[in-house]
Amino acid sequence: MSGKQSPTEHSTRGAYVTGGEFTRDTNYIEDRIVADVEAVSALSTAEPSTIGQLGAGLTEGARAWPVEAGRYRLVAARACPWANRAIIVRRLLGLEDVISLGTPGPTHDVRSWTFDLDEGGRDPVLGTERLQENYFERFPDYPRGITVPAIVDVSSGGVVTNDYPQMTLDFATQWRQFHREGAPDLLPADKAEEMFGVIKRVFTEVNNGVYRCGFAGDQTAYDEAYDRLWAAMDWLEERLSTRRYLMGESITEADVRLFTTLVRFDPVYHGHFKCNRNKLDQMPALWGYARDLFQTPGFGDTVDFDQIKRHYYVVHEDINPTGIVPAGPDLSGWLTEHGREALGGTPFGTGTAPGPVRPGEQVAPGANPLTA
Amino acid sequence: MSGKQSPTEHSTRGAYVTGGEFTRDTNYIEDRIVADVEAVSALSTAEPSTIGQLGAGLTEGARAWPVEAGRYRLVAARACPWANRAIIVRRLLGLEDVISLGTPGPTHDVRSWTFDLDEGGRDPVLGTERLQENYFERFPDYPRGITVPAIVDVSSGGVVTNDYPQMTLDFATQWRQFHREGAPDLLPADKAEEMFGVIKRVFTEVNNGVYRCGFAGDQTAYDEAYDRLWAAMDWLEERLSTRRYLMGESITEADVRLFTTLVRFDPVYHGHFKCNRNKLDQMPALWGYARDLFQTPGFGDTVDFDQIKRHYYVVHEDINPTGIVPAGPDLSGWLTEHGREALGGTPFGTGTAPGPVRPGEQVAPGANPLTA
Repeated sequence: MSGKQSPTEHSTRGAYVTGGEFTRDTNYIEDRIVADVEAVSALSTAEPSTIGQLGAGLTEGARAWPVEAGRYRLVAARACPWANRAIIVRRLLGLEDVISLGTPGPTHDVRSWTFDLDEGGRDPVLGTERLQENYFERFPDYPRGITVPAIVDVSSGGVVTNDYPQMTLDFATQWRQFHREGAPDLLPADKAEEMFGVIKRVFTEVNNGVYRCGFAGDQTAYDEAYDRLWAAMDWLEERLSTRRYLMGESITEADVRLFTTLVRFDPVYHGHFKCNRNKLDQMPALWGYARDLFQTPGFGDTVDFDQIKRHYYVVHEDINPTGIVPAGPDLSGWLTEHGREALGGTPFGTGTAPGPVRPGEQVAPGANPLTA
Repeated sequence: MSGKQSPTEHSTRGAYVTGGEFTRDTNYIEDRIVADVEAVSALSTAEPSTIGQLGAGLTEGARAWPVEAGRYRLVAARACPWANRAIIVRRLLGLEDVISLGTPGPTHDVRSWTFDLDEGGRDPVLGTERLQENYFERFPDYPRGITVPAIVDVSSGGVVTNDYPQMTLDFATQWRQFHREGAPDLLPADKAEEMFGVIKRVFTEVNNGVYRCGFAGDQTAYDEAYDRLWAAMDWLEERLSTRRYLMGESITEADVRLFTTLVRFDPVYHGHFKCNRNKLDQMPALWGYARDLFQTPGFGDTVDFDQIKRHYYVVHEDINPTGIVPAGPDLSGWLTEHGREALGGTPFGTGTAPGPVRPGEQVAPGANPLTA
């Protein structure tokens, strides 16, 4: 917590620059929503994990809340890669009827994400204008960043958790009774150990690696961050040249987590964060993989490129003081043939694809080549 | 001259933002160095041309100086696209022995380009630390931007001209007696009219078009600038899909002028100036053409990518306040096979390629894939 706080990420993520290097604050509200409150409450987990934990209990001071249809609202800005994960997993598992979705707009001020896209500038269920109000409802002196995704207890209006790495794991394991028929197994037990290794490397080197490049405090920190990122991108390119998905033949949690970074790569990270050795669409395996996922129901249909670009280019005034949002890149390539079927596999394993996006949850026309 | 002066370009180019749109100041020291002083002095040209004029006289108040071996020094920062033109043409025509070359470093302060790369921080021939001193030697109250390229009269130390569009035309037409054997005809008389049309469109839409994107004062001006730029890039892509060079079978002045923008496109303009519909290396004809020229003696061997990147990313503090210089893009592609020979033609026409770069004028090792 020492060092200069980065103003750019204050309200999306707690984040700091120490000795030139960007450091993500991983201190969240670590409450969990679980199927068996008593069992989970009886377990304790020494350390919160930056990538979430399977079957673990509660960290010190955290509380377990019961799974309950209709009780909670997921607040997730489409612009944010960490929130985008939760939107995807909710849809893949078919939790739309039991966990509602609130979507703050892409830009926010130093205080909070806001519901500026909603009628009257208020979330239609929570009635709040700013997500900060929901954080304060839970903790009146909440001192950290107002981040998305957050899950809000609708009746009290207070935030239950913003612990995004745990959130999607709990969607998969704790909400199982509410999964749709045909929901994929995003956490296959026989691959869990290897998958968490992949997830961890993807988190530190890629998901967070692009921010490490963009928010580097000096040239040395940037140069190191760039080398780390591209070492990981080369590793992924090689891994995905023989595997259709990160863990093999079907999609898993690991793919969701990589996808939300990849889909932002050329529109934002390449230029804005100076991750510019090459564009994603110049890496054959990664670009084929990213398009394969994009064209799979549950992935691309959650992506709003307009909101993504506006978020980064408008909010990060210290990187882009003009606030001008680039018109590029050309996005039509996302719908081109990817040829990944040749690697075999089937995206949903023994499950099925989710149906159409719910009315009211579609991405705005034109903000995505699927809706153009 | 109304409107807010853009601080970013003050000392490289006089430049202004009016109503959101970037406007280049085309008010230069319009003296010329000519083969026949009396003949040129007897002619007058009503208006200076933004692209230079063939066979024209002097604009009001301008003076003609005599061509003379060893009398003048070309001051041209490798970073600057407008200066890069003069370095290329000087080398293509073999004027190295009669016009010496001074090269200011890539970054400069609000006052002037400086000779910070030279021993003791002074140009070894002019003895000055800042090019501004040479402008002031000529005009003590010189009010406009201290720009490169500039030609300095060595004995007096005063700037003779900084009128870059005229400068390369005069190298070709006025210095003919000093051209090397085998110098190409960069201004073929039978193509002059068409060529000046191409040069004009390339100047307004591409050379200057990338700046119009990067220095747009608001989103509307940027969006318009982006559309203009890409309309021109598509025109060039089509034109170059059937022509090896802009004017057909051999290089001309038009190619020099396009090349210095293209070589900066992916390293700088794509990200820094938000010219990001696609990268240059994703346009087959333009990318083949750019590599063809890059690999032709006199073009790529004048290019210092390190200086180019440092110039834009360090000097333009209002676009890139962190001053961090991207490590990318990967430049190895510049040396790949371009296949443009299939379109026929020969770069130097009936002439020949220039010999090796003079000792002392080579690009620093590693700053260019040719010197890696």
